[in-house]
Amino acid sequence: MTPAWLAADWGTSNMRLWAMDASGAVVGERTSDKGMGQLAPDQFEAVLRDVADDWLATAKTVVACGMVGSRQGWVEAPYQTAPCAVCPRTMVKAPTTGDLTVHVIPGIRQTSPADVMRGEETQIAGFLAQNPGWDGIICLPGTHTKWVHVSADEVVSFQTFMTGEMFALLTKDSVLRHSIAPSGWNEDAFADALSRILSKPEALAGRLFSLRAGQLVHGTDTITARSELSGLLIGAELAAAKPYWLGQNVALIGADAVSAPYITALAAQGVTVARADATQMTLAGIKAAHALLETTP
Amino acid sequence: MTPAWLAADWGTSNMRLWAMDASGAVVGERTSDKGMGQLAPDQFEAVLRDVADDWLATAKTVVACGMVGSRQGWVEAPYQTAPCAVCPRTMVKAPTTGDLTVHVIPGIRQTSPADVMRGEETQIAGFLAQNPGWDGIICLPGTHTKWVHVSADEVVSFQTFMTGEMFALLTKDSVLRHSIAPSGWNEDAFADALSRILSKPEALAGRLFSLRAGQLVHGTDTITARSELSGLLIGAELAAAKPYWLGQNVALIGADAVSAPYITALAAQGVTVARADATQMTLAGIKAAHALLETTP
Repeated sequence: MTPAWLAADWGTSNMRLWAMDASGAVVGERTSDKGMGQLAPDQFEAVLRDVADDWLATAKTVVACGMVGSRQGWVEAPYQTAPCAVCPRTMVKAPTTGDLTVHVIPGIRQTSPADVMRGEETQIAGFLAQNPGWDGIICLPGTHTKWVHVSADEVVSFQTFMTGEMFALLTKDSVLRHSIAPSGWNEDAFADALSRILSKPEALAGRLFSLRAGQLVHGTDTITARSELSGLLIGAELAAAKPYWLGQNVALIGADAVSAPYITALAAQGVTVARADATQMTLAGIKAAHALLETTP
Repeated sequence: MTPAWLAADWGTSNMRLWAMDASGAVVGERTSDKGMGQLAPDQFEAVLRDVADDWLATAKTVVACGMVGSRQGWVEAPYQTAPCAVCPRTMVKAPTTGDLTVHVIPGIRQTSPADVMRGEETQIAGFLAQNPGWDGIICLPGTHTKWVHVSADEVVSFQTFMTGEMFALLTKDSVLRHSIAPSGWNEDAFADALSRILSKPEALAGRLFSLRAGQLVHGTDTITARSELSGLLIGAELAAAKPYWLGQNVALIGADAVSAPYITALAAQGVTVARADATQMTLAGIKAAHALLETTP
């Protein structure tokens, strides 16, 4: 096994590293909990060498995506501005020692309405690499869910929703925490809440405290409340994102757990989605960026 | 100064105690940070005696409102069910030693849609005691803002909004904290966000992350973002609470800081409000409950 180059998905909390051979096959995979959030700019190289000293004996090039390229990261890889090519030709080199070269993939920003992504652009590039010429909407559910309009190999526009973060805050840190189970699922409660908010989005603010009151007054079980909250928040997101998905060709890039309620919710609106795995799309996107590097003079 | 009885506003975080003379005048006032949230049921009496041992030499009766009457409080004062009289005749005695009697004012619940209040019912009773025969809507802004329909001395219906708690969570614990000032105000940003959400409530979910992105992309100042978030959340509340305030007679019970944006927001919708101070209404409500006690056989 001789790694030719390394692919890195370096986010706020974690780093995932793949060793790639000359044919583009994965020959090794490692992870670290040394995310961008806990590193000063001059600490990244040491972490990389710590995780992959043996691989770096032969692999002199690293291509990285994620928050590693933010202003607080290893090097700032300034946002490209949408509309822009899905696969970037403007990677930024991080400061390194020796013969190591680290290319960082830039995020994408939008000026009106203001929005940003960093990491998702690589998953989108991976999806396009595997589905050449694909045209439509890509939804990337997560802490900050993105809806992205892709056409002619460009990111045309996108919008971010804090749905995942809101769900976490409300279930863990708000008064609702007393009434919401840490896990479990009631499909009917989810579907009912979703449908109500989609048909009457202005009701959202009045429905949240009801989850607490429902338990106090009627003894509503906490799994039902959890599913209802998910339905309310995803319903509010779908109501706002309607121009993105209504009558559109939609692909979903995400892990199973976070994707499942979106698939159910979109199916209830008559939208069937193509699925793709987030980690695989990240790797495919980094490979596409690396290929561009080799063809760029 | 000879206290005849004591009035207590005993909430989750704090306790406020007034010494009342036989004529109903306040002759002393004390506070404690020993709120319900940190006390076991058998600790309340000791806290009360600790704060007011001298007053209890002559004052043998205490009338208390707030979370002291919750299931986790000194004694559970079961909710009355709306519609119900504003001023309750069903106070519950807490377990005490010696010749001390502590009457706890019950909260109010609603079965459909499920909702609860505990503490606000006393402020409403105080407002009605000072404004006999008043008919209309009372808004009590705060962590959990209440909109209450009062008619013929009854609480007819009410609805709770987590607006204050959402604002605190988003400004302190979410990704938005990086982009939101801890204080400061931009009236235009507030009014603009409010108006946009009121005319298009389904846009809410898409506007939150924009506050973060606006700073990253355009350098939007953090006071503007703070005011905009307030406008978005109060706008979402007013959109959901419209049946309560549209064309109605509205009174606002609250402290100045929390009331100000509501007054501005309602004024922009052509609704002028009567104002009342929350602490004064609490005291007036406890006095009304105490008066009932004396007239009840």
